[in-house]
Amino acid sequence: MHSILIRNNVKIIGEGSQVIMFAHGFGCDQNSWKFIVNAFLEDYKVVLFDYVGSGESDLSQYDKRKYATLEGYACDVIDIIEALGLKDVIFIGHSVSSMIGMIAALQQPEAFKKLIFIGPSPRYLNDGDYIGGFNAEDIETIFEHIASDYLGWSKAIAAVIMDKPSQPELADFLQECFESTEPSVALAFAMATFKTDCRDNLRKLKIPSLTLQSARDMMAPLTTGEYIHKNTPDNFLVVMKATGHFPHISEPEETIREIKDFIGNKRLSSNPDHQYAS
Amino acid sequence: MHSILIRNNVKIIGEGSQVIMFAHGFGCDQNSWKFIVNAFLEDYKVVLFDYVGSGESDLSQYDKRKYATLEGYACDVIDIIEALGLKDVIFIGHSVSSMIGMIAALQQPEAFKKLIFIGPSPRYLNDGDYIGGFNAEDIETIFEHIASDYLGWSKAIAAVIMDKPSQPELADFLQECFESTEPSVALAFAMATFKTDCRDNLRKLKIPSLTLQSARDMMAPLTTGEYIHKNTPDNFLVVMKATGHFPHISEPEETIREIKDFIGNKRLSSNPDHQYAS
Repeated sequence: MHSILIRNNVKIIGEGSQVIMFAHGFGCDQNSWKFIVNAFLEDYKVVLFDYVGSGESDLSQYDKRKYATLEGYACDVIDIIEALGLKDVIFIGHSVSSMIGMIAALQQPEAFKKLIFIGPSPRYLNDGDYIGGFNAEDIETIFEHIASDYLGWSKAIAAVIMDKPSQPELADFLQECFESTEPSVALAFAMATFKTDCRDNLRKLKIPSLTLQSARDMMAPLTTGEYIHKNTPDNFLVVMKATGHFPHISEPEETIREIKDFIGNKRLSSNPDHQYAS
Repeated sequence: MHSILIRNNVKIIGEGSQVIMFAHGFGCDQNSWKFIVNAFLEDYKVVLFDYVGSGESDLSQYDKRKYATLEGYACDVIDIIEALGLKDVIFIGHSVSSMIGMIAALQQPEAFKKLIFIGPSPRYLNDGDYIGGFNAEDIETIFEHIASDYLGWSKAIAAVIMDKPSQPELADFLQECFESTEPSVALAFAMATFKTDCRDNLRKLKIPSLTLQSARDMMAPLTTGEYIHKNTPDNFLVVMKATGHFPHISEPEETIREIKDFIGNKRLSSNPDHQYAS
């Protein structure tokens, strides 16, 4: 088998011909899509994968220097697209994978049809008028916690960012994902994530995209979703009823509905809570 | 996506790096592997597909002339192998797919590591001393039944070839597979199957193979399994306890065990009922 498909533990499932590629975020793997993926299997060809260093990927292929930036992770996306000869991909990225997908789409625009960002942020650090939600000390503290006690940190943070106290098993599920990641890989991925600044990239995007912004997200405040919406051509913003950084886990039905509406070009939602226009 | 992967409804699942490709037989599709496939997902990368004309394949790609011979079906196997860059494949073919896999392996020996034949026959027609189990009139009668009343024929034959009266739902499952195939495609596939003569190919095979012969099989009598065993270099023969033409459906545990023993090079079985030597 093409070594890329093994390296990134690529799975292809589903009955359709339109490809949807699901890209997991920091500390997770393809298993994090399990709450929504079945809704797409009847009509789409679904491509799942784990970034090198995550899930069941081939850890021997992990390269510290390559994966010190989001461009390294974007290489994984491009490699998989090339190995499978994908075209017109609908790319769904969670969290940091939103910007990884954008980087990949700027490199190979012909491979992508639409991008969907779930809880995206083009820059986590505040910068003048720009509110990313974190200042430099916050981020250094996070790095220190990950470096000194990754398991303790992930336990502490899982419930907060899941933000779904009525279903504590979801925070447990997230924590288990975090725990399965090698701490040194997690630290390097966190550094690549929190140090990135993708704001200049947004303006260059030439394909339609959707920002799914949860109503309250500790990792990506409303300001980051709005910034993406205002600065990305042909971007649609939906502010979801869901709270937390993982709406595809905590509110799968709403997430599925919004994705299907966007894929099916039903851009104007009847839900008055939504800000939904390009 | 590479059009081949859509055309043949290719699925890739499982966690390992060694590839196992499962190839369904006449009137079936990849769903026919569902009783055994889960046993391989932890340790192998499993490739499933539907031949053009079967299952959820792209019927618009069906070419009467191409699929009038097993060589046409072998093209599907080779196309998928090339699209995915497969190497060292363990190919498991059921029924006519055993010989389809052999044809593919003679064309691209470097792509294959081992072949496993479930209920194979190199030639269904009797020929002098050779006992394939069918004479020319039998086969013409089958073609007439398929042509005039495919549903009636498949209903009549499903229980007989499944040969598992204690679980009538298995014959029903098989019948549903048959019913989902276009009758004209089924007739052409039956003709390609019953008219083939692969006996000369056997001697040319250069990779190890396993013949899983069920104890009583209306489609492939013991003589066909023995013929393959005697005429194929490095072929191992197991006569299973299972009866019927679908041991992977009617006796999944025994089938899984024999496949795993062969893959794991445990060639000599402790089961005294087995004839198990090269």
